[in-house]
Amino acid sequence: MSTPDPGPSQPLDGPVLVVGAGLLGTSVGLALQARGIDVVMRDVNEENLRTASGLGAGTPANGRHDPVQLVVVAVPPDHLAAAIAEALTTTDAVVTDVGSVKSDPLTRVAELVPGEALGRYVGSHPMAGSERSGPLAASSLLFDGRPWAVAPHAGSSPEAIALVAALVEACGATVFSFSPEEHDAAVARTSHVPHVMAALVAGALADAPAEHLSLSGQGVRDVTRIAAGDPALWQQILTANSGALAVLLREVRRNLDSVLEALDEGSQDRLGEVLRDVLGRGVAGTASIPGKHGGPPVPETGVFVGVPDHPGELARLFGDVGDSGVNVEDVRIDHDPGRPVGLVEITVAEDRAAHLRTSLEARGWSVHG
Amino acid sequence: MSTPDPGPSQPLDGPVLVVGAGLLGTSVGLALQARGIDVVMRDVNEENLRTASGLGAGTPANGRHDPVQLVVVAVPPDHLAAAIAEALTTTDAVVTDVGSVKSDPLTRVAELVPGEALGRYVGSHPMAGSERSGPLAASSLLFDGRPWAVAPHAGSSPEAIALVAALVEACGATVFSFSPEEHDAAVARTSHVPHVMAALVAGALADAPAEHLSLSGQGVRDVTRIAAGDPALWQQILTANSGALAVLLREVRRNLDSVLEALDEGSQDRLGEVLRDVLGRGVAGTASIPGKHGGPPVPETGVFVGVPDHPGELARLFGDVGDSGVNVEDVRIDHDPGRPVGLVEITVAEDRAAHLRTSLEARGWSVHG
Repeated sequence: MSTPDPGPSQPLDGPVLVVGAGLLGTSVGLALQARGIDVVMRDVNEENLRTASGLGAGTPANGRHDPVQLVVVAVPPDHLAAAIAEALTTTDAVVTDVGSVKSDPLTRVAELVPGEALGRYVGSHPMAGSERSGPLAASSLLFDGRPWAVAPHAGSSPEAIALVAALVEACGATVFSFSPEEHDAAVARTSHVPHVMAALVAGALADAPAEHLSLSGQGVRDVTRIAAGDPALWQQILTANSGALAVLLREVRRNLDSVLEALDEGSQDRLGEVLRDVLGRGVAGTASIPGKHGGPPVPETGVFVGVPDHPGELARLFGDVGDSGVNVEDVRIDHDPGRPVGLVEITVAEDRAAHLRTSLEARGWSVHG
Repeated sequence: MSTPDPGPSQPLDGPVLVVGAGLLGTSVGLALQARGIDVVMRDVNEENLRTASGLGAGTPANGRHDPVQLVVVAVPPDHLAAAIAEALTTTDAVVTDVGSVKSDPLTRVAELVPGEALGRYVGSHPMAGSERSGPLAASSLLFDGRPWAVAPHAGSSPEAIALVAALVEACGATVFSFSPEEHDAAVARTSHVPHVMAALVAGALADAPAEHLSLSGQGVRDVTRIAAGDPALWQQILTANSGALAVLLREVRRNLDSVLEALDEGSQDRLGEVLRDVLGRGVAGTASIPGKHGGPPVPETGVFVGVPDHPGELARLFGDVGDSGVNVEDVRIDHDPGRPVGLVEITVAEDRAAHLRTSLEARGWSVHG
C-alpha cells in the first residue's frame, strides 16, 4: 500500500490556492510557480503573505479570486480542520493539507462538511521541513526527492487522489500511499515517539550540574537534537496524534519497565538477559531504517579524518574525496573542546571505506576509523 | 571540581605498559610513541597485539619487561577490575584505566589489593571512541582535543593523579576532574540514559511494517544512531553503572508516566500542560550542552544547499563556503529517497548564516533555510 503508486493520471494545470504562507506553504508555491503553475496565496499574517509573494511563491488573494483547481492548506495543526472545511465549502476545488497528522483533522472536517464535499478532500504530508520556520526559510527544492505521504479517506474520489499525486510530483517528491490511520501509526513510530523520547533525555540534561555536561559527546547531541524543535508546534502535533502515540509510548514504557525491574532486582543474570534483549532489538531497529535514496539499507561505515579548523581545509578534503571516486553518504564534524582541530567523519558504503582511507592517506591526510 | 585542573606537575617519561590492544589501548600507544615515550603492550589476543605493534603502538611484552612508570589498562568492562588489580600487584607503577564506568571497578579492585597499593590507582575515562573497534580503527589523534575524565579515589596519591594528568596531556586531551561517583552520575546522564532511550526507540522500529519506515526522516535517524553500537559492550557498561543508571531512568519514567497519564485522561488542557512542560524542558536541555571547543553554547543555525550528488560538487561547495570566510560548525547530508540530489545542511553561528546564504547564492547555489 505504501510503495509509490501514481494511480490514474490527472494533470495539475492550476491555479492552486495555498492557504498559509509559512515554510511549507511558501515552498509549495515556489515549487509550483517554478513549473509554470499559477498560485494564489492567503494568510491571516499579512507580513508572511507579503514576504511569500515577494519571493515569487504566488499572488496574494485579496478577498475574491478566480476559481482554483486545487487548494493546499498549510496552517498550524490546531487550525487545520477549520481551514480544510472552509476550503471545501467555499470552493469546488480538490483540497489537500500538509499537516503532520491525518486522522484527527479528517474526523473534525467530516463533522463540518457534507459527505459529498468530503470526497474532494485528500490529506497529505510531505516528509520535509527545517529547524527554521516561516516563508524566509522556504525553497522550491524543499520537497525535492522527499517522501510525501498521500492519505485518502474511504470516500475520497479517484480524481482528487490523482490530483494530489500530481501536486506531489510537481513538487519533485515521491508519493507514498497510506490510509489516515496507517499514516498516523507510521509517524507516531518514526517521528512522534522519537521526539518525546529525545525531549525526555534532553530534559534530564536541563537538571544536570554544568560540569557533568562537559562530558557530553556526539551521541547525546544526536539523540537530543530534535528536542530543540518549536515546543508549541510539537504540542499541537502530539496532541492531534494522541491515540497512536499512546499505543506506542505504552509499549516503550513496558520495555523501560523491564529494564528498571531488572536493575532493582539486582540479579546480574536477569539484568544481562533484559539488556541483551533491549540492546539487540535496538541494533535490529537501526538496521531496518531504509537507506539513502529510498533503497534497502546499505551497510555504511565512517572514515575519520583530522582536519585543521580552517575553512579552506574542508574544500581540499572534499576535493581529495571526490578524486577518490568514492560517494559520500554523510558527513559530520566532531565537536572537540579545547583545540581548533576538527575530526571529520565521512560516511561511505562499507565496501568503499578501505579504498577511501588509502586514497586519503596517500594525499597526506591523517585518517583513522 | 570539573574544570581543567593540572595539579602538581609530574613528567611522563615512560616506559608505559598498555594492557589491551583494542581501539583505545592502541590509540594511547600511538599517541605516546609519537611523543617519543616508549610503550610496551600486552593483550591476550595475539593477533590484536601483533597488529597494534605493527602500527607502531608499542613493543609486545612477551612475558617479562623492564619496570614501567605507568600502566594503562584498556580492556573490556567485565575484565577491568582483575586487570587493574594485577597491574597494581605485579608492578610498582602508577595504574590507570580507560573504562566507561569508575565506581564499580574501584570497589572490586579495593577488595583485591591492599590499601597502600591502591594509592597508585587513578581511574580515568577519555571521551573518545568510534563506531568501529579493534586496533585497526586506532589513531594517535583519537583523543586530540577531547575531554578526558580523571577520577581519583580518596586514597589516590597526588603523584599518581599528576602522572595520569600528564598521560592525558600527552595524548592531546583535556583533563576534567571528578570523583568516581560524580563521573558515573555524569556519564549516566550524558551517555548511558541516552543509549538506553535510543535503543528503546530503535527497538520500536524493529517491530514496524517496512512501509511505515519509508517515512523515516533525519530526526529518527539521529535519535537512534548510537543504538547501533556493540550490544555486548554496552551490556557490560550499563551493568557496571547500574546504580546511577537506575536513578536517572526512574526519573525519566516518572516524566514518561506523566505524559501517558495525560494521554489516557483525555483532557486536552491537562495534556497540553504536561507536554508544554516536557517539551519546554527538552528545549532547555539541548541549549545546556556546551558548544564546540568546550565554550558556552553558541546559537547555531543550519543553511541548506541543494547539491547534485556528484563527488566533485561537495568540493566546489566547500571551496565556496571557505571563500565566504564563514566557519563551518557541522555538516550533514540529508537523506533523500528517489533522486540523486543531496541537500547539504551546513551549521554555522547564527549571526553568520545570512552572510553565508548571500555568498553562496551569489555563486549560483540553491540555498534555503
